[in-house]
Amino acid sequence: MRPADMPPDEFRRHGHAVVDWIADYLENTRDYPVLARVQPGDLASELPGSAPEQGEPMEQILADFERQILPAVTHWNHPNFHAYFSVSASAPGILGEMLAAALNVNSMVWLSCPASVELEAVVMNWLRQWIGLPESFFGMIHDTASLSTLHAIAAARAVADPTVRQIGGAQGLVLYTSQHAHSSVEKGALSLGIGRNNVRKIGVDSQFRMDPSLLRLAVATDTANGLHPFCVVSTTGTTSVASIDPVNEIQDVADEYNLWHHIDAAYGGPAAILPELRWILDGAGRADSLVVNPHKWLFTPIDLSAFYCRRPEILRQAFALVPEYLKTNHDKVAVNLMDYGIPLGRRFRALKLWFVMRYFGREKVISILRSHIEWAAELRALVEADSRFEVVAPTLLSLVCFRLASGDESTRALLDAINASGQAFVSGNVLNGHFVIRFAIGNIGTTRDDILAAWGLIRSLVR
Amino acid sequence: MRPADMPPDEFRRHGHAVVDWIADYLENTRDYPVLARVQPGDLASELPGSAPEQGEPMEQILADFERQILPAVTHWNHPNFHAYFSVSASAPGILGEMLAAALNVNSMVWLSCPASVELEAVVMNWLRQWIGLPESFFGMIHDTASLSTLHAIAAARAVADPTVRQIGGAQGLVLYTSQHAHSSVEKGALSLGIGRNNVRKIGVDSQFRMDPSLLRLAVATDTANGLHPFCVVSTTGTTSVASIDPVNEIQDVADEYNLWHHIDAAYGGPAAILPELRWILDGAGRADSLVVNPHKWLFTPIDLSAFYCRRPEILRQAFALVPEYLKTNHDKVAVNLMDYGIPLGRRFRALKLWFVMRYFGREKVISILRSHIEWAAELRALVEADSRFEVVAPTLLSLVCFRLASGDESTRALLDAINASGQAFVSGNVLNGHFVIRFAIGNIGTTRDDILAAWGLIRSLVR
Repeated sequence: MRPADMPPDEFRRHGHAVVDWIADYLENTRDYPVLARVQPGDLASELPGSAPEQGEPMEQILADFERQILPAVTHWNHPNFHAYFSVSASAPGILGEMLAAALNVNSMVWLSCPASVELEAVVMNWLRQWIGLPESFFGMIHDTASLSTLHAIAAARAVADPTVRQIGGAQGLVLYTSQHAHSSVEKGALSLGIGRNNVRKIGVDSQFRMDPSLLRLAVATDTANGLHPFCVVSTTGTTSVASIDPVNEIQDVADEYNLWHHIDAAYGGPAAILPELRWILDGAGRADSLVVNPHKWLFTPIDLSAFYCRRPEILRQAFALVPEYLKTNHDKVAVNLMDYGIPLGRRFRALKLWFVMRYFGREKVISILRSHIEWAAELRALVEADSRFEVVAPTLLSLVCFRLASGDESTRALLDAINASGQAFVSGNVLNGHFVIRFAIGNIGTTRDDILAAWGLIRSLVR
Repeated sequence: MRPADMPPDEFRRHGHAVVDWIADYLENTRDYPVLARVQPGDLASELPGSAPEQGEPMEQILADFERQILPAVTHWNHPNFHAYFSVSASAPGILGEMLAAALNVNSMVWLSCPASVELEAVVMNWLRQWIGLPESFFGMIHDTASLSTLHAIAAARAVADPTVRQIGGAQGLVLYTSQHAHSSVEKGALSLGIGRNNVRKIGVDSQFRMDPSLLRLAVATDTANGLHPFCVVSTTGTTSVASIDPVNEIQDVADEYNLWHHIDAAYGGPAAILPELRWILDGAGRADSLVVNPHKWLFTPIDLSAFYCRRPEILRQAFALVPEYLKTNHDKVAVNLMDYGIPLGRRFRALKLWFVMRYFGREKVISILRSHIEWAAELRALVEADSRFEVVAPTLLSLVCFRLASGDESTRALLDAINASGQAFVSGNVLNGHFVIRFAIGNIGTTRDDILAAWGLIRSLVR
């Protein structure tokens, strides 16, 4: 009995309707244009300028969801969403989110929801094993890789300058990452007060991998100039081109100069579940921290970023602040995750990943990821076989980067035509000064036929 | 058709079962002990050490959810959850989360989900009107107040030292907040590299409100000592005692010394929707930023923190970083929320708040909040009437703080006994050197009878 809330029977009725809608949506996502066909401001101008005084019937709200909201949705769950990274929410993951929303726990301390805290430890441990990280890594969940990486850099800062927590500042610290690293690395550094000028973007080889000799040179130069190199962030599966930085050789430099080594495996990490791709994380066990996002390529609804750290006590030293109103009788024996990072509130994100890992199991996950990687290789071969196109980067994982040989302008026009078609959505990038199309595969709903159809579409749109 | 995912009919079947479970759970949450009756490690030791190789049936996973997970859940949705702040997920909010999980969009840029970006602007605008902030405030959603406040402090830092983005550092910046401010203020400052030593905790008056004259004195002293006061964080509804800092007088000091004024209204903000409590945000329109959490006292599932900023261009200057792979054709005409903060990924959080605000409407929200406030006053009167107890702080909103006159030890024992009963969950604090019990009201399922029953329970447990 919750007299102020929607009556239980009404919730039951609408809940069933919403489940049916979701089931239909998952089955028929292909019927929607991938990219929303609206202009900026269209939706906002259609909605009332103020919230209603009196409550409205849920039927009306759900009808407006379909009528007003849906046409302005870009369908990330569409099997031909190939932009950015192609992520998707699997059905078991959606069921997990439904239950998490109903429980609505906040697991800032163990006592406030032991299930959430302990299941988080369990699934982080399971995932750690799948990607081959050693037992010494402590895992916890953040919302996004942006936050995971920011926490890694903060830990690195705490090691390099233990006084920063008390007195702030930390001038002269220098961070290293590749020219093709994700923007979240630089954003983390500038947020923490490291400064953009103290972020060195190390050059890459012909396969867009960070060059360890250039890294060593940069670190040595900064050291000689009295600066304080403190952190290197490598990437296994760059957003730019899905290149794989040489983790072991970067770790050698990190060891030599006492740098914290964080690995951004947000997209690429799940590929290490495949025995034939385990090598992409070779040496990761020597690093200090790593991020992998199950919400990217592990069919878990957004948001769930897994952050691993070999030295959790550093996180605790950097972040723990326990006011009286958050003390409990279990603080000496239980892990309170609020002590290990910035956000106090923590929702029950582990539940959906538990559902996903159990429902599919390792073998099915491997077979799905393997098919994505095979289709990417197949698409690459098709692109290579068409003389109008050039493939511009290796295709190790599930991202194919290509352009029209006729130039940037025609490549941009092709991207716009693909996206305007409503049948596929791809995104762009600039590589070696040229505009390229990024075609990412990773949606659990995608089939080989979808990829072939998309390629047919792309070919037909070349002018 | 998503051949690799759970078949649609299977999702439909499990989805209906989960909805029925949620409906029963919301109706019968009272049947569960509020606080999980487990010891640290109980759940973790019960679960397998590794994820399964082969997938498991969803029936089994859902059965294990009930058998293994549920007993380790502390029930935040229980009507006698009175610890911390009593938050709850309303049924319309849960429906919103279900749809958001299914759509699984990532609205980092406008193009990647116009509906999410524009609905966020719309509901932030609606909520802004409800709490009486002027139109000049730009609103966006973060996961937690911790992140909202961190972004406010980062914006303050950017104003105080525009070079920090490029060169880092920012030595000598000093931040002010009250002795009863939330720990997230200090955590934000230390995360950003301000340093704990540069956080001044200003004394309070007898009603636990920041003393503006002490603030002015501290700022003047630091200025005279060559330091750089840059930010003050006031609180309307402290976690400690729900005290209301004098916003206008603090703003006067902020104006005088050119400080960024951020208001933490995470808990208390929704009370300003009530005409008789609008005064708690008097002067907020003069401030620079404000956070209010609909996931606290506005029946919205965790997580949804509303962050308002009068100078969004400062956020953009501080945080925008646009790599080639995130550029779109609409960047000049549309708002890309990734430019205004740290997290790149953004899930469709606005949907659940849209559902909540429309389903209840302003009048129903007011009536629910008003009942919570009335019951808090009633409970306070009951506590005052029992000579064994002392009420230790004003009860302006929905939090009652009290202790046993017989001392800290008996008060702690009482808290433990309440929580061990399974019939209510309260949390503690230390005020003026004495241990006190915090009794928070705010759950949408709570009734007056629940409060009276909890008070009966508390009285019966005094030894």
